[in-house]
Amino acid sequence: MSTSDRITLEHGSGGALSRQLTEELIYPILKNEAYGELSDATAFEIQGRVFITTDTYVVDPPFFPGGDIGTLGVFGTCNDLAVCGARPRYLTMGLVLEEGFPTSDLKRVLESVRRAADRSRVQVITGDTKVVPSGKGGGIFMNTTGVGEALGNHLLSAKNIKSGDKVLISGPIGSHGLAILAAREGLKIAACLSSDCAALFPLCSALYSLGKDLRFMRDATRGGAAAVLNEAVGGNCECGLEILETAFPVPTAVAAASDLLGLNPMEIANEGVFIAMVAPAAADKAISLLRSFDTGREACQIGAVDSRYPGKVILETAVGGRRILDLPRGLLLPRIC
Amino acid sequence: MSTSDRITLEHGSGGALSRQLTEELIYPILKNEAYGELSDATAFEIQGRVFITTDTYVVDPPFFPGGDIGTLGVFGTCNDLAVCGARPRYLTMGLVLEEGFPTSDLKRVLESVRRAADRSRVQVITGDTKVVPSGKGGGIFMNTTGVGEALGNHLLSAKNIKSGDKVLISGPIGSHGLAILAAREGLKIAACLSSDCAALFPLCSALYSLGKDLRFMRDATRGGAAAVLNEAVGGNCECGLEILETAFPVPTAVAAASDLLGLNPMEIANEGVFIAMVAPAAADKAISLLRSFDTGREACQIGAVDSRYPGKVILETAVGGRRILDLPRGLLLPRIC
Repeated sequence: MSTSDRITLEHGSGGALSRQLTEELIYPILKNEAYGELSDATAFEIQGRVFITTDTYVVDPPFFPGGDIGTLGVFGTCNDLAVCGARPRYLTMGLVLEEGFPTSDLKRVLESVRRAADRSRVQVITGDTKVVPSGKGGGIFMNTTGVGEALGNHLLSAKNIKSGDKVLISGPIGSHGLAILAAREGLKIAACLSSDCAALFPLCSALYSLGKDLRFMRDATRGGAAAVLNEAVGGNCECGLEILETAFPVPTAVAAASDLLGLNPMEIANEGVFIAMVAPAAADKAISLLRSFDTGREACQIGAVDSRYPGKVILETAVGGRRILDLPRGLLLPRIC
Repeated sequence: MSTSDRITLEHGSGGALSRQLTEELIYPILKNEAYGELSDATAFEIQGRVFITTDTYVVDPPFFPGGDIGTLGVFGTCNDLAVCGARPRYLTMGLVLEEGFPTSDLKRVLESVRRAADRSRVQVITGDTKVVPSGKGGGIFMNTTGVGEALGNHLLSAKNIKSGDKVLISGPIGSHGLAILAAREGLKIAACLSSDCAALFPLCSALYSLGKDLRFMRDATRGGAAAVLNEAVGGNCECGLEILETAFPVPTAVAAASDLLGLNPMEIANEGVFIAMVAPAAADKAISLLRSFDTGREACQIGAVDSRYPGKVILETAVGGRRILDLPRGLLLPRIC
């Protein structure tokens, strides 16, 4: 008996074929010393404060230039921990496969999970696989829940920001969202773009060494930089942000494609970019720390915290005007992560 | 601006409508002191060994007699922790909604999550919501990842079992799977059945007090009792199981419906039943502990561990024959949990 070419409903039944899929395909690729035997729950120990985060990935298509749903499932969830000042340690993986999904594609995704996990020094320690009938799923959906240990006692929060703090971005924006769109719709205009999907922990932990001068970090995924900037000051009655549009690093291909498609690069999802807010005196140090990493080589300041605009993000535009940069509205790109 | 009647793609965009759905609908229902603010990751502390488990629920239909996908998402995941000898503490929740899903149904599911979590004394501490286009999802899928703290140092495992140990079942089998099937297909034959969906932690923690006499517990979900019994001895070269078919508590309606549908109650999924293996001397005590709970009032012994059949489950059938009870094969009921 060998695993069939395509996933069938019986692979999700809990019977012999489920067992075979797990034992012969999934577990051999993912197993590690912390996931020593197949079981529904796994034990681990972490001293002190534990961080937990969860994300379900529904990206369409599951394979795209620069990565796939497996890469994304590992880096994306680990990044959510890293920006909190936590070292990612363990992941769980919940798969929802659509009947007919090619088994070879599943293998490819799992190999990406393994590679990304090894690079991130995290271990997948338990999982679950469901199968839904053809027409009731999207090929493959993947939930990863990540557990990390606090790097220190300093809690990062947008509540820490003060007027005068500097707003930094770790790298160029817009590549992930446009690469997905190009792969899905066959757009030649953005065919040269690759997702920026990357592990942010090394950069985040370098900034964490700044201590209390580091106020807050957040990765700019769904909703892009615009969403993160707004969420940082959304509930804040004392501070707002003044952001300089021309300061953002935007790859030429992203600028050209966004222009033609009527998209705003600041609203496009990234998977390897975060925004950090730091004390004024620490800004130069923070930028040079970020630039010491390949992923952060274009890190720069994009603005400052400003008490004149409580709760608002004010954008100084390329043509010299000023307007409110709001949370993105209207139909954005679906199934981007 | 108010949340619309149906979920739209924009609710999953990461922009203004995503924020609104989370802030106005999801968070107010789920918030608790451990989930004090909306963020991508949440911190907690647990002393000692931590257990983690993950499950994605794709049950069709999402509402059924005896519960819904929200009840299942909480009890199911907490039960996976409970049978490991862990007290469920925290849950994460990842939703995948299909465009067009009624917002009122989402509210109803979330209220079930809250009620089941309160009853189980667990807290939802972080979450994620994605929306997929119509035709690419199944209405609502829900991943819950559960974190629990070890009840003690004794690690439960099928590796602990010894010849002569007794095999117990906590309650009557088959109701959940048939209730879902009846609700999905409109089968009048099983219309009187309700899911047995229930929290097993109180029963499991009572058995944990038996110490090393408690060898192993596992809830009999997908694949039913047949799958659990086989998985317990699957990799075991020293022991097998001898199981008495007539010992299983089977509700009359389950027996009748299974008979007509050609299903084996031992292969049907349950959501409030587990199997425990205990030292011979502790069997009576274990049964009386289980029976002190309403969910366990029909608990009984169904067989024993036997060194004559290494790795096998031998079933003594109702008509007095003996056969191997194997892992379920062939198309079982899809989307049952």
